[in-house]
Amino acid sequence: MINGNGVGKVIASEHPNFQKNDLVYGLLDWAEYTIMKGGNMLQKLDTLEFPLSYHLGVFGTSGLTAYGGLFQICEPKKGEKVFVSAAGGSVGNLVGQYAKLFGCYVVGCAGTKQKVDLLKGKLGFDDAFNYKEETNLTNTLQRYFPNGIDIYFDNIGGEMLEVVLANMNTYGRVAACGAISDYTNSGKRATLNMVDVIYKQIMIKGFLCANFSSNEIKDFMSMTTNYVRAGKLCVLEDISHGVESIPSAFIGLFQGGNVGKKIVQIAEEL
Amino acid sequence: MINGNGVGKVIASEHPNFQKNDLVYGLLDWAEYTIMKGGNMLQKLDTLEFPLSYHLGVFGTSGLTAYGGLFQICEPKKGEKVFVSAAGGSVGNLVGQYAKLFGCYVVGCAGTKQKVDLLKGKLGFDDAFNYKEETNLTNTLQRYFPNGIDIYFDNIGGEMLEVVLANMNTYGRVAACGAISDYTNSGKRATLNMVDVIYKQIMIKGFLCANFSSNEIKDFMSMTTNYVRAGKLCVLEDISHGVESIPSAFIGLFQGGNVGKKIVQIAEEL
Repeated sequence: MINGNGVGKVIASEHPNFQKNDLVYGLLDWAEYTIMKGGNMLQKLDTLEFPLSYHLGVFGTSGLTAYGGLFQICEPKKGEKVFVSAAGGSVGNLVGQYAKLFGCYVVGCAGTKQKVDLLKGKLGFDDAFNYKEETNLTNTLQRYFPNGIDIYFDNIGGEMLEVVLANMNTYGRVAACGAISDYTNSGKRATLNMVDVIYKQIMIKGFLCANFSSNEIKDFMSMTTNYVRAGKLCVLEDISHGVESIPSAFIGLFQGGNVGKKIVQIAEEL
Repeated sequence: MINGNGVGKVIASEHPNFQKNDLVYGLLDWAEYTIMKGGNMLQKLDTLEFPLSYHLGVFGTSGLTAYGGLFQICEPKKGEKVFVSAAGGSVGNLVGQYAKLFGCYVVGCAGTKQKVDLLKGKLGFDDAFNYKEETNLTNTLQRYFPNGIDIYFDNIGGEMLEVVLANMNTYGRVAACGAISDYTNSGKRATLNMVDVIYKQIMIKGFLCANFSSNEIKDFMSMTTNYVRAGKLCVLEDISHGVESIPSAFIGLFQGGNVGKKIVQIAEEL
């Protein structure tokens, strides 16, 4: 069985912690119905009166990855210059929004005009560009960051990472979150100028959202639910329907097909 | 004029902070005599009854770089596995000695048999190898680190960095101190597997010894002078004599010619 983070409803339970009609969150099979043994991988879900899908995206791993990578790994200061790649994706769009709300200058890149317009419009990024339309990324970054980049939230790796380092300020920080160019074509791996890394005292740090502490997770939920309730944080979801949409939804992640969090809704009614 | 960190003696002074016969430390011209204006680049030197040369190496920038890179950047835990490249150099030999004294398992690499013998013998490294004799660095590192590397003190960059990352444990840390392969041949830049960096949550951090705090420097001096007085830390110096030895001394740094701290002694008597 293939599984992923999901939200479901208990139909029947012999486990003392779960009753019929409980909403649960955790690693679920990609299926309409499934039998979970033990129940250790599940936790009860309090919806906090938000849509169920929010608990997979903005309040789930995507939100925590964005929050943790930006605030815990990069420790931004107000006014710092933040660059986000794959900024139309589930994590990237939230990184940019958090950074703007915090008081940073934020530029994102994405692979379609639709996403760029969304970043500059609805999501409030200071600027954004379509990397597919740029012929010289060094020039591009110098145009958007004439005073250099302080923080790079890297979702793609590859050539962009090389060029960012060359345009980074002293004490620059790179949160290494994804390397989509490595996943899809290992020939595109980033060749780093370590002299730049040393003399600018740059930190590059890989991270996984699973390893943030319970206090960090509490802070994340508190800040994020407040922002969403106040209408300050825009929730971007890209929902497809039915088990039959799973393959195309998955493949789309590697082709930049999704805008915001990709979710497959399997059951119409919970 | 070309300058570098040096120790000198004041012959005459019109500056209120300096008197004749004061020993001073700072950025000095590579010359037998020099006139310093303002004196801001100099500080008085208390020899603490150690040889003057120690204040350029083990108590100077080399020692502070080794100490700061290991303890502040990498935050070792006892028993962790530490790998040091250019371990026969001025910084690398001290990194390995600090790490051993702290309770880590330490392996160094160097470019001559003489250096490898020194590391394993006099300096007390757990093991060492001559990278020039190794045909497959991946196999080499697996042999010396069957349980993976926790900390890499990188003085060279290039292919070694790539191979170290592949052999690194979760939460591995790389103190990026030097990139001699970049200085000498930019075609050898490290091509990083960012997927490894992300999934193992590896940190790569460039640093310069100039940016450690005064408290860190105080701790460094206290620990290091104690170790040297107790005979626990071996001071490796490679001293050449006279102004005429400067060019070969400098070029030797890029060819692995020096063992320990390279010092040019210009005046015989201070």
